[in-house]
Amino acid sequence: MPQLRLALNQIDSTVGDLAGNAESVVHWTRHAAERGAHLVAFPEMVLTGYPVEDLALRSSFVDASRSALRALAVRLADEGFGGLPVVVGYLDRSEEAQPRFGQPAGAPRNAAAVLYGGEVRLTFAKHHLPNYGVFDEFRYFVPGDTLPVVRVHGVDVALAICEDLWQDGGRVPAARSAGAGLLLSVNASPYEREKDDTRLELVRKRAQEAGCTTAYLAMTGGQDELVFDGDSIVVGPDGEVVARAPQFAEGCVVVDLDLPAAADDPVTGVVDDGLRVERVVLSEQPLAPYEAEPPGGYAERMDDDEEVYTALVVGLRAYVAKNGFRSVLIGLSGGIDSALVAAIACDAVGAENVYGVSMPSKYSSEHSKGDAAELARRTGLHFRTVPIEPMFDAYMGALGLSGLAEENLQSRLRGTLLMALSNQEGHIVLAPGNKSELAVGYSTLYGDSVGAYGPIKDVYKTTVFRLARWRNRSAGERGQTPPIPEASITKPPSAELRPGQVDTDSLPDYEVLDRILELYVDRDQGKDAIVAAGFDEELVARTLRMVDTAEYKRRQYPPGTKISAKGFGKDRRLPITNRWRETTRG
Amino acid sequence: MPQLRLALNQIDSTVGDLAGNAESVVHWTRHAAERGAHLVAFPEMVLTGYPVEDLALRSSFVDASRSALRALAVRLADEGFGGLPVVVGYLDRSEEAQPRFGQPAGAPRNAAAVLYGGEVRLTFAKHHLPNYGVFDEFRYFVPGDTLPVVRVHGVDVALAICEDLWQDGGRVPAARSAGAGLLLSVNASPYEREKDDTRLELVRKRAQEAGCTTAYLAMTGGQDELVFDGDSIVVGPDGEVVARAPQFAEGCVVVDLDLPAAADDPVTGVVDDGLRVERVVLSEQPLAPYEAEPPGGYAERMDDDEEVYTALVVGLRAYVAKNGFRSVLIGLSGGIDSALVAAIACDAVGAENVYGVSMPSKYSSEHSKGDAAELARRTGLHFRTVPIEPMFDAYMGALGLSGLAEENLQSRLRGTLLMALSNQEGHIVLAPGNKSELAVGYSTLYGDSVGAYGPIKDVYKTTVFRLARWRNRSAGERGQTPPIPEASITKPPSAELRPGQVDTDSLPDYEVLDRILELYVDRDQGKDAIVAAGFDEELVARTLRMVDTAEYKRRQYPPGTKISAKGFGKDRRLPITNRWRETTRG
Repeated sequence: MPQLRLALNQIDSTVGDLAGNAESVVHWTRHAAERGAHLVAFPEMVLTGYPVEDLALRSSFVDASRSALRALAVRLADEGFGGLPVVVGYLDRSEEAQPRFGQPAGAPRNAAAVLYGGEVRLTFAKHHLPNYGVFDEFRYFVPGDTLPVVRVHGVDVALAICEDLWQDGGRVPAARSAGAGLLLSVNASPYEREKDDTRLELVRKRAQEAGCTTAYLAMTGGQDELVFDGDSIVVGPDGEVVARAPQFAEGCVVVDLDLPAAADDPVTGVVDDGLRVERVVLSEQPLAPYEAEPPGGYAERMDDDEEVYTALVVGLRAYVAKNGFRSVLIGLSGGIDSALVAAIACDAVGAENVYGVSMPSKYSSEHSKGDAAELARRTGLHFRTVPIEPMFDAYMGALGLSGLAEENLQSRLRGTLLMALSNQEGHIVLAPGNKSELAVGYSTLYGDSVGAYGPIKDVYKTTVFRLARWRNRSAGERGQTPPIPEASITKPPSAELRPGQVDTDSLPDYEVLDRILELYVDRDQGKDAIVAAGFDEELVARTLRMVDTAEYKRRQYPPGTKISAKGFGKDRRLPITNRWRETTRG
Repeated sequence: MPQLRLALNQIDSTVGDLAGNAESVVHWTRHAAERGAHLVAFPEMVLTGYPVEDLALRSSFVDASRSALRALAVRLADEGFGGLPVVVGYLDRSEEAQPRFGQPAGAPRNAAAVLYGGEVRLTFAKHHLPNYGVFDEFRYFVPGDTLPVVRVHGVDVALAICEDLWQDGGRVPAARSAGAGLLLSVNASPYEREKDDTRLELVRKRAQEAGCTTAYLAMTGGQDELVFDGDSIVVGPDGEVVARAPQFAEGCVVVDLDLPAAADDPVTGVVDDGLRVERVVLSEQPLAPYEAEPPGGYAERMDDDEEVYTALVVGLRAYVAKNGFRSVLIGLSGGIDSALVAAIACDAVGAENVYGVSMPSKYSSEHSKGDAAELARRTGLHFRTVPIEPMFDAYMGALGLSGLAEENLQSRLRGTLLMALSNQEGHIVLAPGNKSELAVGYSTLYGDSVGAYGPIKDVYKTTVFRLARWRNRSAGERGQTPPIPEASITKPPSAELRPGQVDTDSLPDYEVLDRILELYVDRDQGKDAIVAAGFDEELVARTLRMVDTAEYKRRQYPPGTKISAKGFGKDRRLPITNRWRETTRG
């Protein structure tokens, strides 16, 4: 059987940064060439970044992507890599699509190209377009209708893009029909909790369907609300895992494969799902036999808590860097949410770039102030205290507020204070809200919701506790100081906006609340189904009512790391003026 | 030729309010029956409201919609309208669609039903699903694959839903193939500037393609960011307009039509685009000849300024009412933006429900304070003054801010003050930002951007001036006091956040700025194309840079009336951490 050394570059990429992304491709191609690779691959839309969203509809951006691709082909050859086929994802347009009402303007394509000999030798577009969850690809792209097969050293390599593997039909059975020796899929598959298990089973199943070795190259890093967790996988035609890359880490997986030789009279014409086989021969002759490197290895999986925590760190780090900031600012109450956000921030950008400010009011307890200071001592972040009483007195003198207005005022004074420091000193503000309180509206709009990024906005409160304990334990295991003060974890959660206030004055116990929220928000279950799952009817009704009426606040909430495909924001879009309530239908 | 009296109910509907919407259908059916109608129609998804967005993916809501439809059929018969066919849009699910990865969960359908004799006699789903601009229907629905034809008093009526008319192919040619005598399309077509002309031409063209009289029933009112402008149209097979309903007004268009008799051996089976003809006969016998009412009339079109202004009023009124508020709160600076917002608010909810507050700082000019008070006098809105100097001094004492931080602080103190009054008194806060300043980021996050609704967020500054002048002129023509003080219109725009500040310190003249923004934001033109249109290159580069870097602020901006299909928010989704700049590509 012919041999082939495949290099899968599991890297990050920044939306819009064509020059920087091209530079990455050159850098990692050089690295792959040094390791003796014969075929080099990069993730889906690596050249433009992913997702480009409405930039796809701007023709000057499509032009810029196409030009950058051609320039990259030339550049790679100039650097001495002309003889190495490189698969690069980019943004293209369809030349054939007739203009039609309802089709994305300019007929953009989520495309990939094979660069070889200083030229763009083959291009193709994603066939299956996802349009659910965080994806809107019917809005942006026209589908591809070919099965691209490129012959490399006598092996026929069929190519695919991400969703082509997730949905049934299309390029997977077509690869079998076309007699491919290798199926290579390039992806930008966003992280979801426990998705790694799903992904592994998927690739194993598809390899068996395709009847050939299947390589699944994933993106890693963060872009806006999305996190990409890497986890590239190579599976043999029997479903056996050949190699698996680490999670959340940039790097190159090099794997030596023995692959079937291409047929002398390959299948042509149209195969499954109307896909037309498009073949390009780069090199006919199999390589002279060489000594394969030891098997690529199987990187260890993180446990669930480490995985979620790492996703939050990676997402925040990418957001800060890609927005051109170096430092972050956090209001520290002494509570668990801001403490966890601070710990994540220290891991993401370094404690020397984390600024904490304690903003006590007359209702702030001594132990809260102490816990905030203790957090600073343990982590080494910059810490200062600015009491809000003078600002509070100025408003109360002018307006004489009471009740909820007085409570929210304190939270908003803190938001204004954080933004003033942000403007003055150039830090990006982090919002400390968690998914439980945001879901039920237990937060103050323009108050604790202030911030450019909400690191834990998709994390339920019970998970906040779990992650805090995990982070402390993991520090202990490495002989480091646990970052989060024990008191922040053990004391009853409180907003401290009136004397003696605790969260359970307004909310069910978080253990119960989060289980109801998961059924209602994440799984779209109705009231009856949730009650049938064993929860008190009155409590379910009250919780669902809170969620239904809190939709508006969530709309105002800044983006953060998405750790579930069913979070808030883009993948859960409810009308604001919605009168339907699970709790009131007859 | 058989006669038929058609009643098109151009009404509003509230998302999620199944009981209230059903009540509306009964009310307007009674009205249509009293006017002697033989066929009654309601807009797309009238029973659930439109758009339901992610509610479509919640199966308990789909169940509730289906139950409400069946109950409505019974209720209509109980009320004595069992012999009157009523076409009602609702949310359904497909019974046939096989579960498939990538298909909307539960296979929901954007459907309509014919209710008759206390039963649901026929249902069908939208065939063409729009997934561009403000639409995401591939995310939510599976398409319908039938051509429904219902025989009413010997006339074959083909039915369609909205996009079925906008895109080529499908139900329009199928109606001709099936020999329909009338094509009835029910719609929820959002308002866009000058869309009424487009819509008229579309319906005329489609009537000629269908070869039969075509009735286009539109929704009116407002839902979240969308406004529906009514403008229902009936066109003969020759393209001649038979009737046209008013814009932005609820009502019933009754029109008597002479229509071809149904064929004795009608076409069956599959016609154009794979649509299967589904026929239901409700009544075979043509009506005895009767005296037709005089032709339905052609409601006068509004001119462009009146149309936009009315859209803003209708959108705000719906948002306030549908969110359960009665009164609004506006910060009045004396400037044109807040003055126009106040005028719109007075027209939308009545001056007695509009609360204005002047919040002067030490940089506020005497004439600004006077202009705000003068606006209150002219309109009769509630007015008070709360200086922000004590709050400002408290922050400056604690933080010693300067420059932009000091400017933004003043704006945020006002935002906090408005929210405190909102919490204390129960008004909904309106944000005064216009599209020009939001596009270039000339506003303060959590400051002047505070508010649950931004009535003029999709209105360029030059249009703000034009609408203010139009509103004053129109008041004058009706012998009323022009609401907006002349000085607010004529003085140079200023944020008054530092001594002597005017907008043109930071921005190009609005006349030039808005023309560049329209090309860049609304028309997706690139830098080169804009320069080629005759603008100074350096100015274009500076403007585009401002827009590119202001994306984040816009994300935080509250929803408002959308008067263009290419505004901000849902229909222009750019990645936040986007490094691509029109102004820097090489």
